[in-house]
Order: sequence, then structure tokens, then C-alpha cells
Amino acid sequence: MPTDIEIARSVELKPIVEIAAKVGIPEDALHLHGKHIAKLDDRFIASLPKKDDARLVLVTAINPTPAGEGKTTTTVGLGDALNRIGKKAVVCLREPSLGPVFGVKGGAAGGGYAQVLPMEQINLHFTGDFHAITSANNLLAALVDNSLYWGNPLNIDPRRIVFRRVLDMNDRTLRQIISGVGAPANGYTREAGFDITVASEIMAIFCLANDLKDLEERLGRIVVAYTPDRKPITAKDVDAEGALSVLLRDALRPNLVQSIEGTPAFIHGGPFANIAHGCNSVIATKTGLSLADWTVTEAGFGADLGAEKFLDIKCRKSGISPDAVVIVATIRALKMHGGVAKSELTSENVPALEAGLANLGRHIENMKGFGLPVVVAINHFVSDTDAEVETLKRRVKSDFGVDAVVCKHWAEGGAGAEELARTLVDLVEREKASFDFLYGDDLPLLEKVETIAKTLYRADKVTASAAIKKQLKEWEAAGYGSFPVCMAKTQSSFSADPTAIGAPTGHTLPIREVRLSAGAGFIVVICGELMTMPGLPKVPASVNMRLLDDGVIDGIA
Amino acid sequence: MPTDIEIARSVELKPIVEIAAKVGIPEDALHLHGKHIAKLDDRFIASLPKKDDARLVLVTAINPTPAGEGKTTTTVGLGDALNRIGKKAVVCLREPSLGPVFGVKGGAAGGGYAQVLPMEQINLHFTGDFHAITSANNLLAALVDNSLYWGNPLNIDPRRIVFRRVLDMNDRTLRQIISGVGAPANGYTREAGFDITVASEIMAIFCLANDLKDLEERLGRIVVAYTPDRKPITAKDVDAEGALSVLLRDALRPNLVQSIEGTPAFIHGGPFANIAHGCNSVIATKTGLSLADWTVTEAGFGADLGAEKFLDIKCRKSGISPDAVVIVATIRALKMHGGVAKSELTSENVPALEAGLANLGRHIENMKGFGLPVVVAINHFVSDTDAEVETLKRRVKSDFGVDAVVCKHWAEGGAGAEELARTLVDLVEREKASFDFLYGDDLPLLEKVETIAKTLYRADKVTASAAIKKQLKEWEAAGYGSFPVCMAKTQSSFSADPTAIGAPTGHTLPIREVRLSAGAGFIVVICGELMTMPGLPKVPASVNMRLLDDGVIDGIA
Repeated sequence: MPTDIEIARSVELKPIVEIAAKVGIPEDALHLHGKHIAKLDDRFIASLPKKDDARLVLVTAINPTPAGEGKTTTTVGLGDALNRIGKKAVVCLREPSLGPVFGVKGGAAGGGYAQVLPMEQINLHFTGDFHAITSANNLLAALVDNSLYWGNPLNIDPRRIVFRRVLDMNDRTLRQIISGVGAPANGYTREAGFDITVASEIMAIFCLANDLKDLEERLGRIVVAYTPDRKPITAKDVDAEGALSVLLRDALRPNLVQSIEGTPAFIHGGPFANIAHGCNSVIATKTGLSLADWTVTEAGFGADLGAEKFLDIKCRKSGISPDAVVIVATIRALKMHGGVAKSELTSENVPALEAGLANLGRHIENMKGFGLPVVVAINHFVSDTDAEVETLKRRVKSDFGVDAVVCKHWAEGGAGAEELARTLVDLVEREKASFDFLYGDDLPLLEKVETIAKTLYRADKVTASAAIKKQLKEWEAAGYGSFPVCMAKTQSSFSADPTAIGAPTGHTLPIREVRLSAGAGFIVVICGELMTMPGLPKVPASVNMRLLDDGVIDGIA
Repeated sequence: MPTDIEIARSVELKPIVEIAAKVGIPEDALHLHGKHIAKLDDRFIASLPKKDDARLVLVTAINPTPAGEGKTTTTVGLGDALNRIGKKAVVCLREPSLGPVFGVKGGAAGGGYAQVLPMEQINLHFTGDFHAITSANNLLAALVDNSLYWGNPLNIDPRRIVFRRVLDMNDRTLRQIISGVGAPANGYTREAGFDITVASEIMAIFCLANDLKDLEERLGRIVVAYTPDRKPITAKDVDAEGALSVLLRDALRPNLVQSIEGTPAFIHGGPFANIAHGCNSVIATKTGLSLADWTVTEAGFGADLGAEKFLDIKCRKSGISPDAVVIVATIRALKMHGGVAKSELTSENVPALEAGLANLGRHIENMKGFGLPVVVAINHFVSDTDAEVETLKRRVKSDFGVDAVVCKHWAEGGAGAEELARTLVDLVEREKASFDFLYGDDLPLLEKVETIAKTLYRADKVTASAAIKKQLKEWEAAGYGSFPVCMAKTQSSFSADPTAIGAPTGHTLPIREVRLSAGAGFIVVICGELMTMPGLPKVPASVNMRLLDDGVIDGIA
């Protein structure tokens, strides 16, 4: 099997105007970025009528393991397969972050024969959206320190500036810094720090905004600092929201590219799935729903984090909701959830698979609990044995009443996901979603957390310090009580303990910290360690990247 | 008179493919960024034959004053005017930096009726070149700290990491920071800092590289740190040059836009005119020379800094040289050089003008000393009186033997610069340039500085500490002795004292610091204070920026 970039390079891309035409986008609604990437004009999007028969499919997964699951490849493969069986489908994905491309993770534009193209550009600067968000974030940060510098008319407490700077880079040394060192002309010395751009509240806002007006209003509501007596100071107080909107105007237009098989793909925005909600932009998803009969999208991490936040945050704020959920699982990963070490995954082990099934099962139950039809996609690896596959399909059906379908899109492209596509279409025709949020707006913030922890995570209880409880009450008093909560915990387990694989019960969810994202419109609830600025590994992926003699990019994996 | 952005908005732009066709660029050589901006394919550029009759015109200026000169508007107006009188002309300009757009300076895409368009995009993210340079710079910085973190195999002295991070933002609090604070996992605590992106050595390299291969080699040569025994550690030592080239590949393609009158404009790169050489990319200028009969370009600050570095650095490294020099002056600024306060500039004052003429005169003599034909462009303001204009034209001719031509491109567009264009064409036909560098490669570094200081600045002597002299000798021993020197001093005076306006003589040029830019290939010689990270003013320009209801950008000046 050739590498991802070799496959990508072997494909003859179609002009993006042809891809756009497939879903009725005229050429003059495109802002071209070269021949194979375009942004979609906002006036065109605003002119689109609502399409009542549009279907939305959410692709999520079991709790991730080092064995890999393949949500993005499944999303792309399913989109391709839907088009192959005669449906009009688009996919909606998050944009890759430059930091991980140079770090451990590498690119994030699918893989094998289920990729979006041009993968080099998508994985590098793409259309500059993340750079625009970085600029907007850092302009706001500079405006806050600048207000402090020029006489501090807003009475900012320099110890209580909460808005951090960002870079789209894995740079551990910037996590915590002392800024304003050296001279009075360098401002006031204080503790500060950088997050990676995907962790910026502006990224979350960007992905939740319904249009430019909504974007500007949300930007103005960001709480950047507090006064000594704890009164919030917002981006609007430093007159930032206009300039920030100006910086983000073009970026807010969704990006259109193509899969290897020519499926239109909207790739737009990419907030972290821990301190933010982990899905592509509302604008991209809604645009897909206005243009195609089937829109396939994904949410970050496992269904306990990504899907829950897709449903309780993105759907709540945008008015959309899925017609079905695809839960991606691999036999390798389920065996890890059943206790097998990574080195032993290539040996057949049906009992371990059956033990690990509990993880998948709980995700199925949880998604069904939202009132959503579910199908399981078994993302096939060559080491999977017939006995393992048959066991998994049988048990999923018998234990949880849903279909599990083997998918080979990674090796075979859309043809390898046709059975999944047909199963999904049958399911949606047969079973109407009766979606509801897990909790209502009016529930007190702590009870929202308890509802998620007990219902989805199967925790016995939630703990929080008196200070955290007081903070939540203060936010409720300040009018933020109707916000949903954005859970930030390990992606590896239903619990806050990353080693508690499978389907743990009876555990305690400890809230370590809470943060207000007033512009995005949620309260971040941090349970366990949270890393918002990664570091580079000992041998970064960047060392393998180079230009070949003809200027072709090599080494992006 | 309407504002710049109002004028810009009133213009119906031509498709960029039409602008490209004017100079023989086929549509398939364009990487479109929307309908009005394109990047030019590198393979197309490489395929262009050398054009022996191409003329290069350098636009420079007297020492800047708060009254303003107008190099960029004159460059644009002259390009328009050359096309109006039947020549085939293009202009080459630097890209604006986002930091100053939000700070004091505002946009930098010309002004009045001598602008390049679309001015909002050009002044904001444009095609992302500066973002790519920011990313490349900060990846390299992260790789250096990462090598230190993972066992320090290169024996980096953490006290001697010389490569700084950058942001394209005016943010004084990042000038000097303590990084790696808080925990061992955050790396080694050390002093660090951020410059503005235009001050990055990678920006200078980007603008001096002849092609991708040259870019990669120069990137690899950047000295990022030293060992405890002062041995240099380069970007190549941390395996960075491949990934950096990958990040910069698309950015290195020159950007094509149009003036209000449809003149093709290459806007590409923008290094600081103090710690770097202050001109647009070599690739853009050479592309202009391959396509047009006349290429008009500018260099930063006054002729003592910008033009000298254009000639001694850019020309030396690229093999190009100008056929003539246009020195821009305003009557207002000359009166300031003659001692008039800014508040008094609207009153006629012929004696002050004549006193200030010394500044212009010395720049004329200096440019002639390089063997270049010179013409003076008097950038007209409404407050200029007939007596002032006549005196200036007469004295320039009688005292320095060159023509001074009144230009009204700001108010009238290219029509206002037709006389300048005709005078320039006559001059170039009449007088052949006999260009030579001010100093040879072999001159010792300190003597290069002395040559510039005595010949151009009319200083009596150059002073430097023993440590600086030793450093220069060490660099000569290490093989950097053939580099040109890149002077960094105040733009306001021929001397290192910004208050010494006019044409000071007998002064001393004190070298405060020297820096090695091994990748760019020059030694930066810092005389006086040097600011490489600006701050925002009390009322930043950003507070006036906003989106109008139809998404139109307003408030960029």
C-alpha cells in the first residue's frame, strides 16, 4: 500500500468549479484559492433556501486508543459511498491544525483512499483560516495589555487577565511565560501564556457563529479580564470586536475541496474537542444541508465527548440535529478496551473483543438515549479475523439491536463503504430520529455536569471544590446559567481516569477547574489534566518534510 | 477628497486574468486567490527568458519626516503614468505588515488615486505570505527549544539562543519575556522574546532568495544559537530547513494585483528597512523585469538606508541593478528639514525650503555616486505655493544638475505623474547607468561600515566597543567577512541622531550592536536604538475598523 501522500499525488484532481457544480454552486459564488480549493461566498450562502429533506449524519467513535479508529476516513468513505449508490452527498470536516502536523499526529485529511485533497495544502496553511484566527486572538490580547499600558482606564487587574495568546504551533515553552519584562516601555510584567490556536475561544466562536453579525456579537462578549473587584471586562470594552470581525470576514466563508472520488467536502474550522466543542463550523454544516441530500460530518474524540458536545452544544446553538449516528469502531481498539496490549493486537482474540464490546455498547446506548438511530462502522484492518468480525456483528445486533457493518474505505475508497451507506439509508428511511438534548437550558450548571456524568459516563458522583461551586453560582447570577457545559476530560475513558478503559461504572468525576467562554456561549468544565499547548516529540514529524526538486511537497503523513 | 478606502471601494476592479494578460501571463500560470489577486506559478517564472531591454527604476526618498513623503504612491503613480504614455510598465512593492495596520501607520497600499487594489485584502491577510513566514519562524524557534528539551544533543547554550519568535502584531509586552516557566514539562526557563514578523531573518531570506532551492539553503544557514564555547548552531543542525521550505513554498510565488488604473503590481515580501534590507522580493522584481519594459520598485525609509541597501545588498545578491533612481521629496518635508515645525508647514516659507534642500541634495549626490541617473519627484500637496515649487525646481537643477518634476498622482492618478514619466524616459535614454557597489566584498566588515558612514552619511568617524570589533573579526574568521553590512539606524537623519535633520556633517556613527544574519547573508550593524517589536498607540487604528451591514470592510486608512 502506498503512503497517504503518494496516493494523494497519484490522483488527478478535478477543477473545484466542477465539484461545486455537482451540488449546484455556480462559479461566481466561489472565491478560488488556486484551481482546487475555493471559499464559498457568504451572500450566496445567505440566499440558499432551507432544504427540508436534507439528512444529517454524525460520525463518532468509541473511546480512542493507540490502535486508532478512523472517524475522518469513515466520514470521507461514507460520503463517497453515498454518492456511489446514487445519493447526493457532501462531507463536512474540521481543518487540520499546523501544530500537530509537525508534531506526533501528522496530517488530518483522512488517509488511504479515503482522503480529501489537495492534502498538502489542507494540512499546511490551507486558505489561512487558522492564521486569521491566530491574528484575531493576538490582536485582542495585545489590545488588553495595551489598555493596561495606557493608563488602565478599564481598571483591569493585571493578575486577572484570563485571555491568553495563541500560536498554531506545538511549543511547550510558551505554555507559561512572564511577559512585559525588561523596561517600563515593555508594559507591565505579568504571568501570561500561549495556547495552540485550536484552543482559542475565537476558534469556538468561529465554529458556532451563524453569520458575520452573530460572529461580531459573540466576539464582543468574550471576557478577557476582571477588575480587582471581579467585574468582567469584555472584548467590546477594549473596542476589539469590529477589527476582529474584519480579520475574520474572509475566513468565515467555508472552504470547498474534494475527496479522492470527487465528493464535495466542506472543511472549515477546527476547535479542540476538550476545552471547546470539537466540530467544524455551523456555517459549513448548514451550507451542506442547504445543498446536498446527505451531509456527513464528524465530531472529535469519542462519542462521550465529541458527539455529546455536537448534540448538546452545536445542535442547541444552531437548530440542526442529526438523522442518524455512525459509531466507528475497530476490532483492534475493542480488543484494547478488552485488556489486550498494543503489541498483541495482531493475534486473534475473540474473548478480549467481547470484553471490549462494553465500550462500544455504552456509546450505542448513549446515542440511542438522545433519540437517534445508530449504525456501527467496523473500520477494517487486515489483521481482523473472520471469527472476530462475525462475533462483533452478531453481538452488536443481539446485545444492542443495531447493525454493525464492515468498511474497507481506507484500502478501497468509497466502494469499501457501500454496505455502510446502504445500511444507513435503510436505517434513516425506517427509523425517524426523535432527538432531544440531554439537559434543558434551565438546569443549574452543576446539575448539567451531573446529568452528563451520571447518564453518559455512568459516574456515581461529581465532586467540586467549594470555590468551583461558588464560581458556578456566580456565573448563574451573572446571567450565564443558561449556557450548556463543555466537558473537558480524557478522551481515553468514560471516566476522568485515562487508564479506566472499557466501560467503567461507579466512578467519581472530579471537576478540577471551570472556565467561562462567554463569547462561544458555554462553561468549560475541566476534569483532570488539560493540555492546551502541546509540545513537539523527540523526533518531530517536521524532520521528514522537504521539497522534491520539482517543488513537490514530501514527508507529510 | 474621499478617503483611501472610499476611493478603493469606488473602483470597478478588472479580473486579475486580464491584468496578467497585459504583460503576457497566461491564465494557467496563475494561482487565483479570488478574482482580483493571483500568485504566479514558479515554473512559469523559471521558464521566462531574460529580457535585455528591461528597465528598472528605483523609487527612494529624502529622510522621512512626520510631514510624509509618498514613496509608495509615487511608485504606483509612476507605473500608471508610464503605461499612460505608451510604455509597458509594472510596479513592485512590499506587502503591508498587519501590525502597523492596527497601530499608528495604518495601511500601506498607496493612497488617494495612486493605490493598489483590493486594498482591504492587501492590508489584511492578503495571500498569507506573512503568516507563512510567521509559522516558519516559530517552527524553527520551537525546534530549537525542543532540541534543548530532549537531552540537548547539540549542546545548545540556553543563554545563547539568538533566534527569536515573531508575530505580525504590535505587541510590546512580548518584546522581552521569560519562557518555559512553571514546570519541567514546560522546558527550560530562559529569556526570550518576540519581534514583529517583518523583522524575522526568514523575511529577509524570503526576499533575497532566487528560487526554492536557494531559499532552502539560506534557511539552513540561519544561526539559531551557540554552544557554551561559542560554536554556531544552525537551522540545518535542528533539521528544520526542509519543513521551513515546505511552509514557504506557496508563499514564495509572487502576488499579482492591480493599481486603480489597471497597472500590474507585484506585491511580495516586506522586510524591515532597519535590521533587514527593506525591499520586496528578488523574485518579484526579476519577474517584473522578465515581463515588462519598465519595472518601478521602491526601497524603505530614505535613500541613506533603503536605497543603499537596495544597491549594496539586493543588487549584489541578485545581479540586478537600476537604470535610474527617483528621489521623492515634498516641500513640506524639506521645510521641516529646514527647521520649520509641523504646525507651521502650511505657510509659505521659501528660505526654510532652501535650507532643507541640503537633505535632498546629499541624497542626489549619493545616488549619483553609485553611477545612477537621478530625477526628483516633488510629491505635491495643496499647501505648496508656486514660489516654493519654482524655487525647488530651479535650485535642484542649478545646484545638483538634475530635474525636479511636480507630481499630482495622489489627487489625479497616473495623469498627475505623466511629466515625471516622460522626464524619466528621456533621462534613461540620454544617460546610461554605470552602476557600481559602494564597497567590494573583500573589504573588512568594519571598513564597509566606515565607507558607508563617511561616503553617504558624511560622518567623521565610526566608533565601536572592543567587543564589537572582536565579534566582527570572529565573523570574518568564520567565513562571513564577504557579507555586505545591513545598516540599522534612525530613518530621520543621515546621522545616528534622529534630531539631526537636514544634512549633518562631522558626526560620529556609534555602533551599538552587531548581529549575524547568516541565512540572509549580511551583518546587521545597529547604530542607536532599534525597535523590532512596535507597540500599539493609546488609540489604535483597530478601534475604527468594522464590517458594514453588507460585509464591506470599513475603517482601514
